[in-house]
Amino acid sequence: MAVGAGNRNPEAGPASQQDMRRQNLAVVLGTVADAVAGQGPLSRADVAGLTGLTRAAVSSLVDELIGRGALTELETAPSGRVGRPGRALAVSSCGPAGLGLEVGVSHLGACVVDLRGESRVWRRVERANAGRPARRVLAELAELGAEAQAEAAGLGLHVEGRVLAVPGVVPTARQGLIEHAPNLGWHAVRPADHWPDPDTVPVPENEANLGALAEYWQAEHGAETFVHVSAEAGIGAALIVDGQLFRGARGFAGELGHIPVDPDGVPCPCGARGCLEQYAGEAAVLREAGLAATADPVVLLADRAAAGDPAALRALDRAGRALGLALASAVNLIDPDALVLGGAYAELGEWLLPAVRAELAARVTVRPWDPEALHCSALGRRGALLGAALLTVRRIIADPTLLPVA
Amino acid sequence: MAVGAGNRNPEAGPASQQDMRRQNLAVVLGTVADAVAGQGPLSRADVAGLTGLTRAAVSSLVDELIGRGALTELETAPSGRVGRPGRALAVSSCGPAGLGLEVGVSHLGACVVDLRGESRVWRRVERANAGRPARRVLAELAELGAEAQAEAAGLGLHVEGRVLAVPGVVPTARQGLIEHAPNLGWHAVRPADHWPDPDTVPVPENEANLGALAEYWQAEHGAETFVHVSAEAGIGAALIVDGQLFRGARGFAGELGHIPVDPDGVPCPCGARGCLEQYAGEAAVLREAGLAATADPVVLLADRAAAGDPAALRALDRAGRALGLALASAVNLIDPDALVLGGAYAELGEWLLPAVRAELAARVTVRPWDPEALHCSALGRRGALLGAALLTVRRIIADPTLLPVA
Repeated sequence: MAVGAGNRNPEAGPASQQDMRRQNLAVVLGTVADAVAGQGPLSRADVAGLTGLTRAAVSSLVDELIGRGALTELETAPSGRVGRPGRALAVSSCGPAGLGLEVGVSHLGACVVDLRGESRVWRRVERANAGRPARRVLAELAELGAEAQAEAAGLGLHVEGRVLAVPGVVPTARQGLIEHAPNLGWHAVRPADHWPDPDTVPVPENEANLGALAEYWQAEHGAETFVHVSAEAGIGAALIVDGQLFRGARGFAGELGHIPVDPDGVPCPCGARGCLEQYAGEAAVLREAGLAATADPVVLLADRAAAGDPAALRALDRAGRALGLALASAVNLIDPDALVLGGAYAELGEWLLPAVRAELAARVTVRPWDPEALHCSALGRRGALLGAALLTVRRIIADPTLLPVA
Repeated sequence: MAVGAGNRNPEAGPASQQDMRRQNLAVVLGTVADAVAGQGPLSRADVAGLTGLTRAAVSSLVDELIGRGALTELETAPSGRVGRPGRALAVSSCGPAGLGLEVGVSHLGACVVDLRGESRVWRRVERANAGRPARRVLAELAELGAEAQAEAAGLGLHVEGRVLAVPGVVPTARQGLIEHAPNLGWHAVRPADHWPDPDTVPVPENEANLGALAEYWQAEHGAETFVHVSAEAGIGAALIVDGQLFRGARGFAGELGHIPVDPDGVPCPCGARGCLEQYAGEAAVLREAGLAATADPVVLLADRAAAGDPAALRALDRAGRALGLALASAVNLIDPDALVLGGAYAELGEWLLPAVRAELAARVTVRPWDPEALHCSALGRRGALLGAALLTVRRIIADPTLLPVA
């Protein structure tokens, strides 16, 4: 499932002509997809120049990519430059697309992203999902997804893959299984067992992983190795390493919420003591701020903090210091380019960042550390759903042969 | 420098026939090198069967590998099986080799490893290197290295690469520089500036990284993703991820010694409080055990602990608990297959393991964790020097075109 899963390893086996063709299709599509606005649209000749492939090879590859619906080629207006008008390549804005789905503790979501990475359909409905039977939640989500797909079809988009963001553990070794989603009360849920239409079953993926991938693909900070921390009911974190999701040996990497920040501190329901979640988790922050749970506790906290409420400010400062302490361990171990506060934390950044930065400055001392390397995600709570849709799109760009030939 | 640095990434550029040849040379050499004892020696036909390459392709590749000195081919004794006697391929036991060098706080080392990964020359001399000028230390090491290389030449071995293990920071972006080796008192030392013979200058590498790589290449526990912790004067750790050294964004990954284990605890010279090194570092353990520094404090501690000395046992238990707490953070973040106590810790494992395991059991609760996933390295304090020599050998196996054609 990880992007780049198709990367060749010399130990994996001999290279074939077919591998070369696949790799070069990906190089050409990736080159057109990565062409930045300033570079303007690329011609076949431009692609040959950028990739080092011959013009003949590029033409054959481009023709195949057009046939698979991944590229379009348009007559461009005269550019004022000498010579005949060029033909500009572009990644298709209608055609292949990815459907993202999301089960949150208090909402359902569906979105469709085109091959350019643009979100074209976006739906989100509030639902109290905690403790509801998975079958009912997933049936409602399937309906939302079908509506989104129908709307996308009206825009000329064809869904090529479906990914489901869940706040739970999705082990690498058992694809298709949500092993445990504590805040939903789900154990060993396999979406395929509950999904009404066997043709549209989505592949589940941890929402923190998807938020981190969306951040990598859409943010412009240029970090290739970073820790992305998000929070809904629990604390989720994920690691992007050299531009790829790092899952760990069994798919459990990034469990920041149970890093000990006060070894002899508050007992945690997990059985340990002093876990980060007891200081920076939603319930802990609300309790410290003297607030009861509401429909949107993040907005409530932000409102109170903006109004200068001392208890809210104190709770966010305490959460920020605990986050900073846990992130200091992450920096010491992983040496990331950047740390990103995403999800709900992004919306509370104004009050969290100073405390997190102060703790990092005090704890990360044996190597250079730039305080600006910690920042908030621009995607906020949209990240996970966006990442779910983008995953299909990025897999296609990494291997265009996943698309059927027209 | 990392093994596998030659792995192709589809985004890196188009594949060429030359890349395919290089990759297939590596596949063939790797197949012969990995043939386990039970499998017996491989013939050209066996290699074709194992790799999926044609017999003609294998023969051409084998001929080139023999020409480069990486493989030998011998008439085998009749096996009792029907058919003519086979010809068995083997990785050369004389020919290409790697030279490892080491500057420790209290010793110098040199070793030569052949292409099969066997150590053929081993030299270690005691030297109090802390605070001595780098020029003098490196001149002595160059002499030791030249002796080892001469001895290896007598065995028919030709040194193809030189790597220097140092207890310090070697940043990725500035190859050839030891930025900081606090326990030697070295700042910004570039071995090339001090090495007497410009033709034999070694590439420096952090000793914890090399110890972890040696553990990966030589141990038989089969873990592909693990944290390797070692200790000399400081605490060094390194991460192996999917069989490759994980350096982090700038080469600083694995700084376990400054993970906070007691946030408001003992001040550390690094400027922070409660760092692991203040509880599990050599000086801290000796102090807690009521022992003065000696020529070999590890042996002293082990002797006292074996004799049941309560202060030594208490100091090792405290160190083990602190190590366990820091490693709990590592497990939560990285989700490794295994944790390995290497270097001096391996020699103290009998007294450290129970406390580390107890702390991990109490702290790693939200996902399965097998106590046996923590164990001691069989290489002990030999790991870093062995890793320095093996690095060259493994680079050759990953890209045999590094070897000159005979």
